[in-house]
Parts: sequence; structure tokens; C-alpha cells
Amino acid sequence: MSTAFAALVDWGTTSFRLWLVGEDGTVLAERRGGEGMATAAEEPGGFAGVLDRHLAAVSVPADLPVVACGMVGAKQGWLEAPYVETPADPDSLAAGAVKVPGAERPVFILPGVCQRADGRFDVMRGEETQILGLETSQDRQDGRELVCLPGTHSKWVTLEKGRLAGFATFVTGDLFAAIAGHTILRHSLTTGDDRFDAASFAEAARAAFAHPAEISNRLFAIRAGGLLAPEAAPHAASTLSGLLIGLELAGAASRFGGLGGHVVRLVAAGPLAARYRAAFSALGLDATAEDGEAAVRRGLLAAARRILT
Amino acid sequence: MSTAFAALVDWGTTSFRLWLVGEDGTVLAERRGGEGMATAAEEPGGFAGVLDRHLAAVSVPADLPVVACGMVGAKQGWLEAPYVETPADPDSLAAGAVKVPGAERPVFILPGVCQRADGRFDVMRGEETQILGLETSQDRQDGRELVCLPGTHSKWVTLEKGRLAGFATFVTGDLFAAIAGHTILRHSLTTGDDRFDAASFAEAARAAFAHPAEISNRLFAIRAGGLLAPEAAPHAASTLSGLLIGLELAGAASRFGGLGGHVVRLVAAGPLAARYRAAFSALGLDATAEDGEAAVRRGLLAAARRILT
Repeated sequence: MSTAFAALVDWGTTSFRLWLVGEDGTVLAERRGGEGMATAAEEPGGFAGVLDRHLAAVSVPADLPVVACGMVGAKQGWLEAPYVETPADPDSLAAGAVKVPGAERPVFILPGVCQRADGRFDVMRGEETQILGLETSQDRQDGRELVCLPGTHSKWVTLEKGRLAGFATFVTGDLFAAIAGHTILRHSLTTGDDRFDAASFAEAARAAFAHPAEISNRLFAIRAGGLLAPEAAPHAASTLSGLLIGLELAGAASRFGGLGGHVVRLVAAGPLAARYRAAFSALGLDATAEDGEAAVRRGLLAAARRILT
Repeated sequence: MSTAFAALVDWGTTSFRLWLVGEDGTVLAERRGGEGMATAAEEPGGFAGVLDRHLAAVSVPADLPVVACGMVGAKQGWLEAPYVETPADPDSLAAGAVKVPGAERPVFILPGVCQRADGRFDVMRGEETQILGLETSQDRQDGRELVCLPGTHSKWVTLEKGRLAGFATFVTGDLFAAIAGHTILRHSLTTGDDRFDAASFAEAARAAFAHPAEISNRLFAIRAGGLLAPEAAPHAASTLSGLLIGLELAGAASRFGGLGGHVVRLVAAGPLAARYRAAFSALGLDATAEDGEAAVRRGLLAAARRILT
């Protein structure tokens, strides 16, 4: 059995995950919690207290180093780890890590990545570690890959020979919540009707992908359809979801020279993965299924090896 | 001096406007109030009470007929005037008018217009009367015109030989409020900074018009620019406004076969008119300035003549 090499932590806005690993990446123990960056400061002992309790629960030696990524390194987090610039790779993440001063054990926080090229300002924090931890794809002979991480702020990333070359964020989930809750469409999206209508979704995704300029008219058509043809109108929430994901795919196609020539590596799990897979399928596009949890662990381990050895 | 022919009322969600007119359209008296459809039911005497008090204030004879348009005829209004279908003209508006039962004087409420063609469901209520009241344009020899009424739900309408042929609603103002108040951008749009930055606005309008698919990425770039280059980043609120109006113009171009061949008739006043004019100008497009208040009065009068004589 491996001996412990480091504790790896994926510390996001609303979640905490920790793996105790051997140097070869073997997982020796694992912890999950809800003490995300947004609330950790209010826990007993703050960020340090949260971390210590999780480490103690798996009997980690007092001097074992910790390497963390995610919003824990934001300005509002534990300790700011300033962004490194694109192109980024495991070496630049390791070089940009900050060490928490005064901690009993060595605790390193990895930086996020920013992009300034051509004024296309963008930032990520946490996703870079996950993306750089994706297993090298065997079928990309030209060394260029496109990765999609859907969510509140979906990230689309180009990998070139293992480096994070460029990226674009699309505020898809954020828009969904704002439109569903705070526009005229709040009258159309019946609370409690969380059914997913695949046909409405696919039709909407195709419409938004084909005519992204018309998105704001398609949004109103959800309301108008409900007024004029309540029995025949497409399912409102599934249509809104399809429109916004279709718009995201159109946006990624516009930013990255089309999607037709790529197999997109889709890093998602559960219902969100199914939803994006349905959108790709509706558009006749291919996407792989990537294990995001394994990826972030590999990305953390790659940085930890560079920092600690 | 003309004798009174009718009282014309433009009764929207949040506003009430009344004109006492002669048969030739001469305005004999005028009233404005804040008792819109949304609150009129709670006033003493409800809708009838609001109307009576405004009429009494200008000493209107007890039997003088009233013709009203707008949200007062919505399901949630005074009395529902069901939508008439496109194509619509003053005759179909007059034919679709409903008479309020039991009122002391004749009160007619004009219908809204709906569109079902090709599943492009859409509705309007109030704007149809205004659009059909626009003065016939002299410079449109082919008889086809494109009209833009910006607002919370902007309406773009094609007029063909004086008939309202088709239209599309864009939820531009609704999106602005939802995005500014309820997405990550709420951190970027500083409360109280209501300055308008013309350069930021124009650049954003051009970007959204040229690449509408990328709108959701451009939204995040407002936030990222504020984090990465707070001094150099474009003005956030002006950028958001430019992006959403540029997107609307791109959508109208997509729906109506481009904007380059049209002189768009812009029905707006005040700061909103200036903002849309700036967007048209940034894109090298032309727009006329239409008097919306005169137009709704002419539209009401045209319907009143058909109903009352």
C-alpha cells in the first residue's frame, strides 16, 4: 500500500472535496463537505478549521502537505492566488501557487487562469486544474482539443499539446436562472413542473444554434405560445434550457472556428451531462464523456509533484 | 372650434393617457395619470372609477363615447378584448373592439394583435394601434416599412400598404434588468453609476451585431474585464446596454431579411430614443424619428371613426 504523499483539495464556491493520495495517485482516503468558499470563513476556525477537521477525520500526519485549487484562492477566499496567464500548463500552475503563511502544515493554493489576448478578457478558477488533468486523448493527432465544462458559467477551452491555450466563458446557467425567475417568462415556467421534454429541448437547441441572433425573440415566443396555444406550445422550461444551451454551442462555434471538426471533450456528470449530450446530439455533433472528478485529482497531483518534489 | 367626438384612451400597464378630440382629430383636452392597468383595479371604483374621474376633470358629456387601447384589454385588465390575427389594419381593430357592458357611456376597448404564422407565436397590445396610426411615409414607394418600438419588450413590425403584416418581440429591456440585477454582472454594474459612455456602448453594439452568437461570452467579459483591468475596461452598464440593443438589431435583421435595405421608423422618445439612435448610427444604419404620442392618437381616432360612424 502507498504511503501518503499529499492531501489534494478541490475547494469551490459551494463544495469541498479532499483526497489523500500516494505519490502514484492511489487514493488512500476521501472526504466531501458543503463548506465551500462562500461559507467557510464563517465556520469555526475559518478555512483552516474546515481543512483541519477533514484532515483529522482521515488521520493525516501533521506535516503532510496540502495542495488546493478553486475559489479558495479567490480574492474573497482564504488567500488570493493571483491568476496566471494563458497559455497555462501544470508548470505555470505550480509556479503560481501561493503558500498559506502561518499554517501548521504546508498548504499550497493553486492560481486560476486569466486571458487578456485581443481584449477577450476571461477568467477561471478551478477548471484549469481539472482541464490540465484530463487524460491525454489518443485520437487527437494534431494535438488540439476542445473541452466543454458546462455550468452556471460554462467554460470552453482549447488544449494545444497539453497546454491551456485559450478559453471562453458563457453564462448559460446564470442566464437560465435570471430569465426564469426575473423576466416575463416567470409566468410561463410553472413552479414544480420540472419535467424534461426532450422534443421541446432539441427543437429549441437547433433553433438557437441556427439563428442565435433571434434568441431574445425566441424567449418571448415561449410566453406568447403559452398565451395563444397553451395545449400545443412546447414545454417552457425545456425550451428555455434548449435555447440557452443551443446559444452556448453557437457561441463556442463562433469563438473556436466551428464545432464540426472537433470531438468535444465534455466534462460533466449527472443531469447536466445528459442535457448537454442531448444538445450535441440534436445538432449532429459528437462529444466524449469525461470523468471530471478523476481529472481534477490528476491535475492537483500533477501540480503537487511539481511543488513538493 | 370642433365639438367633442370621442375620448381616446391609451391605457397601458403603468400609465393612463386621455385625449378629448373632435372628429377631425383636433385635441380639445388632455389628461395623464399613473393609474395603469396594473393598479387600476385597486383604485376607488376600479377601471370605471379611474376613467370617470379623468373624464369629469375635463367636463366630458355623459354620453360621449370612449375608445381605449392597450393592456386595459388584457385578460388581467378591465375587459378582455381577444387578439385579432395578423395581418391587421384599422378595420380589423375596430371589428375586434369589445364594448364594456353596463357602463353609463359607450366604452370600447380595442383588441391586441397576435401572430401564429410558422409557429412564430407573438402578441402585442397597444403597439398595434400606435403603429397603424403612423403617418403614411412618403418615401416608401414599395409600400413596405419596418417599424421599431423599443422598450421592455421591443416590437419590430412590418407594415405592408398600411397593414400590420408581421412582427417580432425582443425582450431587450426585460433582459437588461434581469442580467443587471440577478446574474454575476450585478457585481459589475455599480449602483449609482448611471453615466452613459458612448464609446463603450457603440463598441458593444457593433460586437453583438457582428457576432450575436457570442452574446453570453461578451456578458461574462464585462465581469472579467472589471477584475483584470478595472481602469481600462469599458463602462459596464453602457456595454451591457450596447450588447443587448446590438443583439436586438441583429435579431431584427435576421427576422426581416437584413436592415441595410430599410429606413427603420423608430417610435421612441427621450433617452431610449437617443440610445437606439446611437446603436443605429454605430452600425451605419438609418432610422427616422417618429412621434409615438401623435401616432397612438391617430390610431385610436381611425378605429373610433370606424366604430362610431
